[in-house]
Amino acid sequence: MAVGLNPPEDLLPVAGIKLGVHAAQMRYRNRPDLVLIELAENSSTAVVFTRNRFAAAPVIVARQNWQRAKTRALLINAGQANAGTGSIGLDVAEQCCETVAQELGCATEAVLPFSTGVIGSAPPLDIIRMAIPVCASKGREDAWLDAAHGIMTTDTVAKGASVTVDIDGSPVTITGIAKGSGMIRPNMATMLAFVGTDAGIDQQLLQQSLQSAVEHSFNRITVDGDTSTNDACVLMATGRSEATAIVDKDSDAWRVWYEGLMQVLLKLAHAVIRDGEGATKFVSIAVEQGNSEKDCLEVAFTIAHSPLVKTALFASDANWGRILAAVGRAPIDELDVSKVSIYINDVCVLDNGDTAADYSEARGQQAMAPEEINLRIVLHAGDATATVWTTDLSHEYIRINAEYRS
Amino acid sequence: MAVGLNPPEDLLPVAGIKLGVHAAQMRYRNRPDLVLIELAENSSTAVVFTRNRFAAAPVIVARQNWQRAKTRALLINAGQANAGTGSIGLDVAEQCCETVAQELGCATEAVLPFSTGVIGSAPPLDIIRMAIPVCASKGREDAWLDAAHGIMTTDTVAKGASVTVDIDGSPVTITGIAKGSGMIRPNMATMLAFVGTDAGIDQQLLQQSLQSAVEHSFNRITVDGDTSTNDACVLMATGRSEATAIVDKDSDAWRVWYEGLMQVLLKLAHAVIRDGEGATKFVSIAVEQGNSEKDCLEVAFTIAHSPLVKTALFASDANWGRILAAVGRAPIDELDVSKVSIYINDVCVLDNGDTAADYSEARGQQAMAPEEINLRIVLHAGDATATVWTTDLSHEYIRINAEYRS
Repeated sequence: MAVGLNPPEDLLPVAGIKLGVHAAQMRYRNRPDLVLIELAENSSTAVVFTRNRFAAAPVIVARQNWQRAKTRALLINAGQANAGTGSIGLDVAEQCCETVAQELGCATEAVLPFSTGVIGSAPPLDIIRMAIPVCASKGREDAWLDAAHGIMTTDTVAKGASVTVDIDGSPVTITGIAKGSGMIRPNMATMLAFVGTDAGIDQQLLQQSLQSAVEHSFNRITVDGDTSTNDACVLMATGRSEATAIVDKDSDAWRVWYEGLMQVLLKLAHAVIRDGEGATKFVSIAVEQGNSEKDCLEVAFTIAHSPLVKTALFASDANWGRILAAVGRAPIDELDVSKVSIYINDVCVLDNGDTAADYSEARGQQAMAPEEINLRIVLHAGDATATVWTTDLSHEYIRINAEYRS
Repeated sequence: MAVGLNPPEDLLPVAGIKLGVHAAQMRYRNRPDLVLIELAENSSTAVVFTRNRFAAAPVIVARQNWQRAKTRALLINAGQANAGTGSIGLDVAEQCCETVAQELGCATEAVLPFSTGVIGSAPPLDIIRMAIPVCASKGREDAWLDAAHGIMTTDTVAKGASVTVDIDGSPVTITGIAKGSGMIRPNMATMLAFVGTDAGIDQQLLQQSLQSAVEHSFNRITVDGDTSTNDACVLMATGRSEATAIVDKDSDAWRVWYEGLMQVLLKLAHAVIRDGEGATKFVSIAVEQGNSEKDCLEVAFTIAHSPLVKTALFASDANWGRILAAVGRAPIDELDVSKVSIYINDVCVLDNGDTAADYSEARGQQAMAPEEINLRIVLHAGDATATVWTTDLSHEYIRINAEYRS
């Protein structure tokens, strides 16, 4: 069902990052479900986590460990989210870290755990413990695609992206993988995403860069408005490239590298939407000329979360009244409806609050037919703008979420 | 598909209110679609309207007219919402009022117009003009049920309720009708609802009473989170009963009458949910021991709008992790997750942040099986409480909203 999405073809290795992937058979049969990522010494790591108050046990442990020590390894299991599991879940997450630490000979706090899958159950500790040495022995720098498969749950397509940028004549690589299909409304974080670069970057600058990039990529997508308990995005910088380390946000080097990072994160975020549960459309919603970026985002997300807009998109029905109604109920302080214009793939349907003079049902239907839909809402109020990406709401979404426990 | 809902059997006439109903064939064939409500002289009328900024033309005209003159008549058409119709729509709404005023011999401002149906088209003025005298000639005090049919759109069951209360030995009647099935998330208003009483009530007190009653009934229901452009609720008091007029909010008379009003409004609000598009469950969500009523409502509506919770309800799947995730992302300032308990129809699934000791999948499934589901979230933070009512999200919801233009 994925909309215009193919598995990534070439995910470039990142010097200093080894990935070990194994089918431990924890919930899924005969597909990889455990990934161990090992980082070279002196790498920097930046993280963002979910803002859901019911943060999963691994999120709690990872957040603590990251503050206590320089990260050397990440362990990710797919199948059980280890959320809503109380003290038992915390114990499982901590013991996973301990086993990895023993295997790699590092401190327990240098290991970050991540889980994804059904909320309410912890992963089987015994199976994970036995599988960790297997993952460690399989570690390779060119296993990003295998790892992308190893973190999938209801995803139908593996998600990854790579770019190479030139910093002062030296090539620098940025490679990332992500998973996510349902329970997608990241808030200051994402579903699981792991991004590596061989650039050398100051820890604090790395964290700033990740937060800014996530804010403009993963935090601007939604499938169902449901922020997960397990969202996490990790950015790892090994400093193993030939390029000089980046220490200054005002440098050309940072700008070039950041642009590459944004490319990777946007591609991953869009891939999550293209593979959104039951998606038959890839929809971008741009809100322009708002009073503030916050206003633009409120309007865009109100449209993106409207079940009536989403079912009209599924039906390819140019039922623009539903878009108008969503704009009208968006929680912003000021809105002059007589200045609002709405476009569907360049066809103007509402022109300054009134039906567009040259609009016809036929033009509307034609605009709504493609798989890729661009909605554009012009508020004519200020000069802020924001774009979010979402899916339609289909029978398949209901089937996936009513028939299977996810 | 309506959940435990039958058409009302006996809607009591209200002295001083005549209803005329006609099948004007504006959009639907062979079913009533135009209702004229005529009020006795000196009646008081209270109104609440949608907070959607794209208020429909009839909402704009009704709001103005109500402020300018004592209301004598209401005209309601079903099929076209007359929203997003610009100046043409305003003209149609005003001319409808003019025709009614000529027919009844009252001021144009004494007429309030209401529309419901597809956004983006105005009702056919010529047909309405011809039909108004027919409605007027049919006016009867015992036609509430006919009127309930005459305002339906995607509703599958007519909605109405009546109570009689005793005020100082004299019987007082309250009768109401409503329509609504989709685009249901009233905000300071409702879908269309018209309620009459033969009590005599001071205009200002009537308005206060309506606002308070709507806040605790129609403003606590949601099907899809989509606030309509046309929501309106009107309360008419004719003063034709034998009881003394109610002028004081601190009187027993007011309390008795208000309790009757709440009964009627809650019954109508619940009927809208029971007939919610595609509904297979009637779900009440009670949030208890919150810091404030606002907090309780935020948590309850976050759960009620979660597509993942709604599809689990449709599947009768005790997937409580989705409820937990919704609680965790609710936009409230403080939440101690270690104090949160969750109950499904009296089965405790989460006990102070941890899986309940005696919980089993079998108990969960049994709790989720009935058509009527009570979710109870105990925050253990304060002493505020609030309840909202909602539906599940089914294949039928998608079919209704993808296959038909509504």
